[in-house]
Amino acid sequence: MSVTEQVLARIDATFEAAQARWIDWLRIPSISAQPKHAADCRAAAEYACNELASLGFDASVRETTGHPVVVAHHPGPNSSDVGGQVPHLLYYGHYDVQPADPLELWASPPFEPTIVDGPYGKRVYARGAVDDKGQVQMWLSAFRAWFEETGTMPCRISVLIEGEEETGSLGFKPFVEANREEFNKADMIVVSDTGMWDIDTPALSTSLRGMVYMEVILKAASRDLHSGMYGGSALNPINALTKALGQLKNEEGRVMLPGYYDGVRDISSRQANQWASLGFSEDKFLGDIGLSEAYGEKGRGALERLWARPTCDICGIWGGYSGPGTKTVIASEAGAKVSFRLVPGQEPRQVADAFKAFMQARVPKDAKLTFITHGEAEGLEIGTDSPIVQAAAAALEDEYGKPAVMIGCGGSIPVVETFQKALGLESLLMGFGLDDDQVHSPNEKFEVACFRHGLRSHARLLGRLGGQ
Amino acid sequence: MSVTEQVLARIDATFEAAQARWIDWLRIPSISAQPKHAADCRAAAEYACNELASLGFDASVRETTGHPVVVAHHPGPNSSDVGGQVPHLLYYGHYDVQPADPLELWASPPFEPTIVDGPYGKRVYARGAVDDKGQVQMWLSAFRAWFEETGTMPCRISVLIEGEEETGSLGFKPFVEANREEFNKADMIVVSDTGMWDIDTPALSTSLRGMVYMEVILKAASRDLHSGMYGGSALNPINALTKALGQLKNEEGRVMLPGYYDGVRDISSRQANQWASLGFSEDKFLGDIGLSEAYGEKGRGALERLWARPTCDICGIWGGYSGPGTKTVIASEAGAKVSFRLVPGQEPRQVADAFKAFMQARVPKDAKLTFITHGEAEGLEIGTDSPIVQAAAAALEDEYGKPAVMIGCGGSIPVVETFQKALGLESLLMGFGLDDDQVHSPNEKFEVACFRHGLRSHARLLGRLGGQ
Repeated sequence: MSVTEQVLARIDATFEAAQARWIDWLRIPSISAQPKHAADCRAAAEYACNELASLGFDASVRETTGHPVVVAHHPGPNSSDVGGQVPHLLYYGHYDVQPADPLELWASPPFEPTIVDGPYGKRVYARGAVDDKGQVQMWLSAFRAWFEETGTMPCRISVLIEGEEETGSLGFKPFVEANREEFNKADMIVVSDTGMWDIDTPALSTSLRGMVYMEVILKAASRDLHSGMYGGSALNPINALTKALGQLKNEEGRVMLPGYYDGVRDISSRQANQWASLGFSEDKFLGDIGLSEAYGEKGRGALERLWARPTCDICGIWGGYSGPGTKTVIASEAGAKVSFRLVPGQEPRQVADAFKAFMQARVPKDAKLTFITHGEAEGLEIGTDSPIVQAAAAALEDEYGKPAVMIGCGGSIPVVETFQKALGLESLLMGFGLDDDQVHSPNEKFEVACFRHGLRSHARLLGRLGGQ
Repeated sequence: MSVTEQVLARIDATFEAAQARWIDWLRIPSISAQPKHAADCRAAAEYACNELASLGFDASVRETTGHPVVVAHHPGPNSSDVGGQVPHLLYYGHYDVQPADPLELWASPPFEPTIVDGPYGKRVYARGAVDDKGQVQMWLSAFRAWFEETGTMPCRISVLIEGEEETGSLGFKPFVEANREEFNKADMIVVSDTGMWDIDTPALSTSLRGMVYMEVILKAASRDLHSGMYGGSALNPINALTKALGQLKNEEGRVMLPGYYDGVRDISSRQANQWASLGFSEDKFLGDIGLSEAYGEKGRGALERLWARPTCDICGIWGGYSGPGTKTVIASEAGAKVSFRLVPGQEPRQVADAFKAFMQARVPKDAKLTFITHGEAEGLEIGTDSPIVQAAAAALEDEYGKPAVMIGCGGSIPVVETFQKALGLESLLMGFGLDDDQVHSPNEKFEVACFRHGLRSHARLLGRLGGQ
């Protein structure tokens, strides 16, 4: 029995404890976007820090200009024990979660994790169940199994767990840049914040969309007005805002910002063939959420649209009266939050500027526009040649009995770009979420089966890289 | 000294008490749109009922399917005292008020009336200060002065004070229809819910816009979605809603519903000349609220657009995430509240149907639209020939020392149509609000000078009609 096999046996024997730690962490409402949850964010950081410290890591909660970051280092095994140098991995994750509203749509309270039977066995419902506390707890528990079995780690390990991933990592990015020397000795970043192909098929993500997330506020009159007294004379900011935002996409699903598609490359035929071979059913994908047809760019493949084409989605809009009944008001202002998912070749700053110019050109003279850029990240492609990526693919195949597929990811993990630029390091994107995990939605969940196999896969990867 | 002059002297001598009753009534947060304020609505009704009962009226609070209505009757003077038949007036007003949000924009709490010095002397800030508690309290206090001076009323008087004006009078209208015989003996309705021309110039309103107020909700996926995972494939209800709503008006300010202007008549040249002679400055009207140009229908006069042309204003919009920071979500639904101000010749039902068809034609297949019609009322014109209207004009000229002007009203008082249809009665619209009273906005106020002269004008009208 190899050491790795012993570690896997220990994981199975102590699985309930791992699940309990995951659930305890989920009870902390670490919503980074809401200032009232700042203390909860810190508590979630301390929870992870204490765990790492108990596993022999040099761990600390470090300050940033935003929520704090958990930093930890482990020197790995004594090199004489393993006959040579072992790789140095930098594990990245985030302890912060998305806001949980609308609360009334949750079947159980978002911060009271609830275990329910599902088609794949037990699942845990909670905000952060998968994104990202569940995924982070998999590798923390893999570390624990190695520690309990061998007293040390099979590789050199550094850890960064931030608290601002859901809000643009505004304090985390400068922290990484300011502490470049502490982290740039690693060989690769390991990130578990992506998904599997399906419940039986593991995946590595090799492309990631980037993002520009803008807030626009349109102000008109100096106060709210009576629509009877002023309607027909005064500028209505909601009419003006909808008129401009309504032009963002044309009937073909194309984003109408000038220059938006400059630099966007078509996918290679090899890529197209590989994705076609996955047998993705967009009908099922959309049917599962009650939709009958796709609303993306016409003339593109389904996975191409999700993984390799840029988009524009209005994520929020508000203005005037939205309570029960009526209020005959012309609001003084209205606003919206707009996300642009980007692909390699697009410059986030250019997209932000084009959006501002687009809106400005479409609103009347008295409309005063304010823009807030909440986040900017480029789209990325990740090479698959490195020995660490190859080891991850092998670890996944060992665990699942079938090869891992190389997929794209429609979402953004903006810090992957930060790591590339600030540290010169590539990222291994090995995640265990499913499409129906309801990430960022009410009733977010994570399958216990995914958690278990993900934990075992992480332990296998460490064993492979540590030669054990 | 005529009896009317004695009554006016009493009004001046007891003015502080009238102001105190007005302010007491304003303390009751009788917001009809919000179910949690139902008890406050009833309390506001009882307040008015008690006042009327103390003045010799047969007064009661009567139930409707919505908030209750205050009903009162007074037989008027013994006919031998006044040498003949006196007119029978039906006073109408409402004790309910608009919601007060956004609360943070109020300089003082909306239900703690606050007296502040302004350019015209004292003013009272509160929700309902003018609309309509302040205006109703003027005629209640005029009744009191006549009662205290003469022990009776100079005319026959009936009273209807409803509690659902701000929410479409859904229970009040059937109440009036069901009790037609109790009210249709009056000669005319008296309504104080409109404005003066300016602080020195009294006015009677002789046209009123109607209204259709619609709520539209667009539902797409069965749950909120992650914009990274689904963006480029799933229908986004906010994108779809803004695309459709953004087409409601064209660049010329015309409402684009098919058939919308069918039946709308151009104003007569006499009307145009009369309004032009008022010397209305739209630059000042808009400059006072921070706007530099008008956004109505091109090629129409300023007062024509406000009083005689239909409009479309989106009064509220919501969907997705509007909290601080970011949430990368594709909402499952979005909604908006849309008001159409109508003029004589437009059919509310046709406009509602045209709006539904317009939206349906502009959203994708998977967009499930729900419509709620919150209110429907036709636009109205009111004749100026009747002796009661002439008496009102004379009473106003007596009080202000200059003639009352005949103006239009951009707002809607839908019950005026109800009274015309159900009771066969015309309405006298004699109001004392000013354009800057911030009706339906934060910091609603009413000038004490308007309240005083309005109260005296109401007392004068009763005196003229009663021959005293």
